Amino acid sequence: MSPVASPETVRRDNLSLLLRRLHQSGARSRSEIGAILGMTRSTVGELVADLGARGLVLAGDPARLGSRGRPSMVVGPNPEGAAAIAVDIAVNSLSAAVVGLGGQVLRVTRVAHSPRRLAFEETVEDVVKLIQSAQASIPAGCWTAGLGLAVPGVVRRADGLVHFAPNLGWRNVPLGRLVAERLGSELPVLTANEADVGAVAEHTWGAGIGTRHLIYITGDVGVGAGLVIDGRSLVGAAGCAGEVGHIQVNPMGVRCRCGAIGCWETEIGGPALLRRAGSAEKGYRPEAIARLVREAAWGDPVALPAVEEVGRWLGAGLGGLVNALNPQRVVLGGYLGTMWPLVEQIVQAELRVRVVAPALEVVEIRPAQLGAEAVLLGAAELALTRVLDDPTMVPSRAAEIRAS
Amino acid sequence: MSPVASPETVRRDNLSLLLRRLHQSGARSRSEIGAILGMTRSTVGELVADLGARGLVLAGDPARLGSRGRPSMVVGPNPEGAAAIAVDIAVNSLSAAVVGLGGQVLRVTRVAHSPRRLAFEETVEDVVKLIQSAQASIPAGCWTAGLGLAVPGVVRRADGLVHFAPNLGWRNVPLGRLVAERLGSELPVLTANEADVGAVAEHTWGAGIGTRHLIYITGDVGVGAGLVIDGRSLVGAAGCAGEVGHIQVNPMGVRCRCGAIGCWETEIGGPALLRRAGSAEKGYRPEAIARLVREAAWGDPVALPAVEEVGRWLGAGLGGLVNALNPQRVVLGGYLGTMWPLVEQIVQAELRVRVVAPALEVVEIRPAQLGAEAVLLGAAELALTRVLDDPTMVPSRAAEIRAS
Repeated sequence: MSPVASPETVRRDNLSLLLRRLHQSGARSRSEIGAILGMTRSTVGELVADLGARGLVLAGDPARLGSRGRPSMVVGPNPEGAAAIAVDIAVNSLSAAVVGLGGQVLRVTRVAHSPRRLAFEETVEDVVKLIQSAQASIPAGCWTAGLGLAVPGVVRRADGLVHFAPNLGWRNVPLGRLVAERLGSELPVLTANEADVGAVAEHTWGAGIGTRHLIYITGDVGVGAGLVIDGRSLVGAAGCAGEVGHIQVNPMGVRCRCGAIGCWETEIGGPALLRRAGSAEKGYRPEAIARLVREAAWGDPVALPAVEEVGRWLGAGLGGLVNALNPQRVVLGGYLGTMWPLVEQIVQAELRVRVVAPALEVVEIRPAQLGAEAVLLGAAELALTRVLDDPTMVPSRAAEIRAS
Repeated sequence: MSPVASPETVRRDNLSLLLRRLHQSGARSRSEIGAILGMTRSTVGELVADLGARGLVLAGDPARLGSRGRPSMVVGPNPEGAAAIAVDIAVNSLSAAVVGLGGQVLRVTRVAHSPRRLAFEETVEDVVKLIQSAQASIPAGCWTAGLGLAVPGVVRRADGLVHFAPNLGWRNVPLGRLVAERLGSELPVLTANEADVGAVAEHTWGAGIGTRHLIYITGDVGVGAGLVIDGRSLVGAAGCAGEVGHIQVNPMGVRCRCGAIGCWETEIGGPALLRRAGSAEKGYRPEAIARLVREAAWGDPVALPAVEEVGRWLGAGLGGLVNALNPQRVVLGGYLGTMWPLVEQIVQAELRVRVVAPALEVVEIRPAQLGAEAVLLGAAELALTRVLDDPTMVPSRAAEIRAS
């Protein structure tokens, strides 16, 4: 329950409202801002001046700010005004990016890496090096909001403990604490599941723009989901909501890495797809999945039925989630997104059988749009949100916004 | 996105904050209110005077208001200041209640009824009679916030269309519109699923008090859920979230009334329980279930294994929901609540196998506390929420609050 609003909190909330809007939808004219936020011209002017003095917005040339409108009126987020460092610890690579306001990737580095084959301490060491190199590249005067780490595993958000990340071979790795200690800085370190942050990114800039109820499901080795409920990311009581890979869909199915039988992941996860195609591959390589999906698209008589069988189980599980959550949109990431054109009919047929009418009427399924960048954008958002919630944490430079 | 806050909206929000708090937690001293809401003594005084002038709160004798504290300081919600009419259309009964602020049931009527055996027009007629009789009993000067209808079916909230209520034998019944037309009054008529409103009631006054992430699952003929996410009721994009009865849990299972195979409802619903106990009962009577659960509690060699088998499937399905939503509490209503002591060990064992560690650590399962009243209290809340959101819709009586 929020306390009573004082004039300061009202002003802070309005700064936050304006900055978040520009961050999400890009440069806008002052009159558009006024119309969207229901603010008077003079209120907009004051708020823009305040944010400008903090270096968080830029006014000026609409071409440069990537918007149309009369030059004198355009205001946009300043990507070099505040930024976050984002890290994606994936199964076969590490990536680090500097992401500025507006979701602009100022710099990104991706290196091939196999966390599975290393002790986690070595991976942490490599992550820290990437972070330090990213940090050094942040433009002078840019406020660094913090660090967002994305991991393919079950994460406790409060302290960044990675309980279980089977594809990294991790159990109970205190990732957030280790990285913070090794960096030795005051920067907040925020850790989350890759699907959760991917959902935020697709919701803000990708296939989920403008929706209030979204399920993002991503297929890789495992299957994870990120949920947006009523416009907000659902993190759950312990920060680990979205573990849909471990919904039981088939009691006659195979044993999952989690120990249970017949989890959804054992029917639609990457290894399940390879298994259905009779692949003799040991271990798991994302490239093998990508190749299989391409072969299916060419009509390969082994690959296509395998993909279609995954499509049936995708539909069966998705039907339950759509019944439970009544989303407006489902966004499919990873290979689930790339195989979508091949399984759309099958999934829709499953949904028509399983989903209650009003939920079926409103739900739309789309492949993800942001690719691998989704995870980095979403991880950055973990930290940028701090500035978006309270822009007054960035000190004013006592300089007025550049005359427009 | 909410518009900029004006002084009027700040005041309205504060009135709302205070009234909702009293509504949920009962009478409080002015100093407690100040401490809880972070308001100064004089702000609390002004807000209480305003709400008092509208007849929405009472100040005075703490014994009468059901609270401790110094007599002069206690303020409570006035159940006769604003009220809603709640209707529960159940499988074998109709109920109507007048529920005042604070969740106080001022009057309740329950009549045996079989909507299944009647054309829906006849049921609507009977509902309207109950409503009119309830309406006539509302105390003079009490603001009637509206009408809340709860139905065991899939409801589109926007207009109260009941898409599908198999246990009433209804398909596409425009219940909200029919009732509003027959009443011919200006009262808002709000229609929702019984599990959704039950969840709200258990969250506000029952087994879910104080939690922010709650799943309420209720078993009757069908199985439904109401979800509270981050403190707010999840209604979904079409208002029909929570249809967990139609999550597929068993592809080798039986055909569900919805047409699909192996829905959760076909494993744990009332008819499934009777089936497992080898009952020859035709149709479905809640009393038969209640008797079976009692027999199981006495160790009956047929009833107990049937209940335990339902417990195993309850755990299997619940595991998936806990993985997906990471709730703090699961509240079991209907016979799922009454059988809880018999299946607790079985369900917990299933969850230990299926649920990721951090989600398992935080989740607590409890039987519902409000019984059949949950649905009426929650249905009333559909309408009372209007007054709680904006107490200024109730006109001031220009009389000061009764001197304390």
